[in-house]
Amino acid sequence: MSEKYPNLDSYVESVRDEFEQKLAQFVEIPTVSMQSEHAEDIERGADLAVEYLKAAGIEDAEKAKTEGYPCVVGHLIRDKSYKTVTIYNHLDVQPADRQEWNREPFKFYKDGDRYEGRGTTDDKGPALTALYAVKYAVDNDIPLNFRFLWELEEEIGSPNFDSFLKARAEEFKTDSVLISDTIWISRGKPAVPYGLRGLLSFTLTLETGTKDVHSGLTGGAARNPIGELCQVISECYNARTGEVKIPGFYDDVVKASKEQVGSFLESGFSISNFMKAHELKSVRFDDPATIVKSIMSLPTFEVHGIVGGYSGQGVKTIISPRAEAKISVRLVNNMNGEKTFGLIKEFINTLNPDVKVNYQVSSPPFLGQFEGPYAEAARDAMKFAFGTNPAFVREGGTIGSCTSMQNYLKAPLVFLGLSLPEHSYHGPNENYDWQQASGGMKMFTRYFDTISQL
Amino acid sequence: MSEKYPNLDSYVESVRDEFEQKLAQFVEIPTVSMQSEHAEDIERGADLAVEYLKAAGIEDAEKAKTEGYPCVVGHLIRDKSYKTVTIYNHLDVQPADRQEWNREPFKFYKDGDRYEGRGTTDDKGPALTALYAVKYAVDNDIPLNFRFLWELEEEIGSPNFDSFLKARAEEFKTDSVLISDTIWISRGKPAVPYGLRGLLSFTLTLETGTKDVHSGLTGGAARNPIGELCQVISECYNARTGEVKIPGFYDDVVKASKEQVGSFLESGFSISNFMKAHELKSVRFDDPATIVKSIMSLPTFEVHGIVGGYSGQGVKTIISPRAEAKISVRLVNNMNGEKTFGLIKEFINTLNPDVKVNYQVSSPPFLGQFEGPYAEAARDAMKFAFGTNPAFVREGGTIGSCTSMQNYLKAPLVFLGLSLPEHSYHGPNENYDWQQASGGMKMFTRYFDTISQL
Repeated sequence: MSEKYPNLDSYVESVRDEFEQKLAQFVEIPTVSMQSEHAEDIERGADLAVEYLKAAGIEDAEKAKTEGYPCVVGHLIRDKSYKTVTIYNHLDVQPADRQEWNREPFKFYKDGDRYEGRGTTDDKGPALTALYAVKYAVDNDIPLNFRFLWELEEEIGSPNFDSFLKARAEEFKTDSVLISDTIWISRGKPAVPYGLRGLLSFTLTLETGTKDVHSGLTGGAARNPIGELCQVISECYNARTGEVKIPGFYDDVVKASKEQVGSFLESGFSISNFMKAHELKSVRFDDPATIVKSIMSLPTFEVHGIVGGYSGQGVKTIISPRAEAKISVRLVNNMNGEKTFGLIKEFINTLNPDVKVNYQVSSPPFLGQFEGPYAEAARDAMKFAFGTNPAFVREGGTIGSCTSMQNYLKAPLVFLGLSLPEHSYHGPNENYDWQQASGGMKMFTRYFDTISQL
Repeated sequence: MSEKYPNLDSYVESVRDEFEQKLAQFVEIPTVSMQSEHAEDIERGADLAVEYLKAAGIEDAEKAKTEGYPCVVGHLIRDKSYKTVTIYNHLDVQPADRQEWNREPFKFYKDGDRYEGRGTTDDKGPALTALYAVKYAVDNDIPLNFRFLWELEEEIGSPNFDSFLKARAEEFKTDSVLISDTIWISRGKPAVPYGLRGLLSFTLTLETGTKDVHSGLTGGAARNPIGELCQVISECYNARTGEVKIPGFYDDVVKASKEQVGSFLESGFSISNFMKAHELKSVRFDDPATIVKSIMSLPTFEVHGIVGGYSGQGVKTIISPRAEAKISVRLVNNMNGEKTFGLIKEFINTLNPDVKVNYQVSSPPFLGQFEGPYAEAARDAMKFAFGTNPAFVREGGTIGSCTSMQNYLKAPLVFLGLSLPEHSYHGPNENYDWQQASGGMKMFTRYFDTISQL
């Protein structure tokens, strides 16, 4: 470690117990924004976050109202002459099905350096990692002001973040925004994304009756909503290749350049590691360049579940009266969620006018800086903490609030993520680890130091 | 009522309370053969059935072992010179999802003449109805011997009935078989089916990973088992029309003749009644002849559920590692389950070789007598009890044991069903009613009398 931060290593070790205790408390509040039964947990999670910020010296920390779930905000303006960084994280988490997990999803479990539980890596762990770096920076006189912006609706597409930030943009005046909610491609090889895919989600519903009917007595004449939805989905996309067949779908997609694809491939990407990290038995393509383009710079259409019908043991020969398909689209560069939804709805309406297409959420895609002083500071901080230059990539996931921050804060957005593919982002047995947390504290410290001097 | 049976009306009224109590006890044992957790209930149901038969004077009634769940059998050979009829019913029932029902499915509920609960109409109610007619016939010296053959694996395709009956065929020597497990097309217009569709069920499974993955981080490259199964299903059949696209599928189907279709239409069939009875909002065709052909004399391919993926509130943007589709085919006339399964498996293998096609059950279609003395006796008994000639139809459903009985007992099979479309066969809020039960007792009595003299 550089002599510039003589006590950084020991600081990081000294806060480990406290970090783990705080992370455990965070994880054990199931802040699932997608399921309304967790509304009280969201409030409890926000209250705990306010406590954490106050304990770290951010005295004005508060649970700020939005039209939906609150944001937790706080400001540490130490000197008006200092530069200001706004740190964004989110504290809501994905749902978790106990049956798919090895242990209780909302119990924190520590196994050596590994921390398991829903939210450990997405995004409570990185939020706390950044907080501990801020504490160090303040204690060690790095001349920077800090603002915190912790959202609790990220996992549902940030439906109220835009209006919240628009109303309070003046309060969040900042020189740059730091977002720690992204994922490397490979452990040991840091990755800095400069773009994110957007998200559009919707459901298809079809109701042709009111009760299960007997497939012998009615089969042949009764309509089958599950079969009809299968047909609509298959007419929308080729599930073998991922190719979307909806007219106009690709019109606003800009192809990634050779240089960009080259940088994607430098991220440590390999098909075998990708398959291992995500526990995939096979993938759609056998060419690495096609795969990185497919996950980083092309849109998707995917079905996440078809609800309705018999799901027990054996084959119960009923025809279901209704079915629902859960579908999402990842958007890239110039694609617009509203326009894309319109194209999809129109197309499905011509295929099967009885199918209802129900809008859920939409977040625009984001494309930020690939170079410049903040990108340089990010590269340097990654190398400082993890010993190797990061790759500049785009991330396949979505952070709905990015575009709002870009629009209202008018400051560069920098993504310094710490999650790894094997952390099972959104999946069962989600985890985080001390290597990434301790490295992350050092990375953020170095980054704060560098940008304080810009 | 004919003077030939002077006390029949009062007999039927006098047994009503006892009939209802026995039906209630029957219904409240959840004899679900499809779900292995009900194995003990099946045994309890069989024990109760043995009790019922003994109480009715069938002293040798017993729970007879098969390779699977038992059959309940009993013989009442009163005089070797009498003709013998074998009465077939089944005592196992379909699964029931509490959420879809207005009340507990396995609690008996009486509302005036209406009896609600799983199994009331399929097939515990008709079984008891026949038993009370036998009691009357014996008490009133109708010269006929009776055998009972009550199965407990009908709802899973009678996998062990064939070997059971083959081994004991000699014991069940009979002049005819009476089956009461079919459904009229319309209340007030009795229907006698002379054919049943067969059934072939299977599942399609596809596994492309071991855990849910993030549709942003992996979407585009990760395979989607739900999407791929949708595609396979859509390539197998057109869900809008029901037309099956598997090569060779229709090769062994014999078209129903004009005369047969005419008889189907005489059953009281109307599209509006069909839709009302099954609570359908729309059907595939607007022409009654096409609909009766589709449910009575054409095969089907239907998907009953797709399991895997997210089924909670909202859209959780994961890609599931596996999916299972539950599918069945109804077979007609010369179609053979094994051959049809082979065609389907081969076709799906060419579409998507990673999809596993897993055989479940198969029961051959059945085509019996449309005329002759037993058909005449059935027509006469229906008219005697319900005041109008029955229509001769084919039934879309399946009774797997029919072909075994035809093969080993070498006696005519006669279907005198009592269920109505509004009884919600296999559906939620299954019910039966006293009109059908009391009429049924009279119908069976008349039928026994007639066939005793053949």
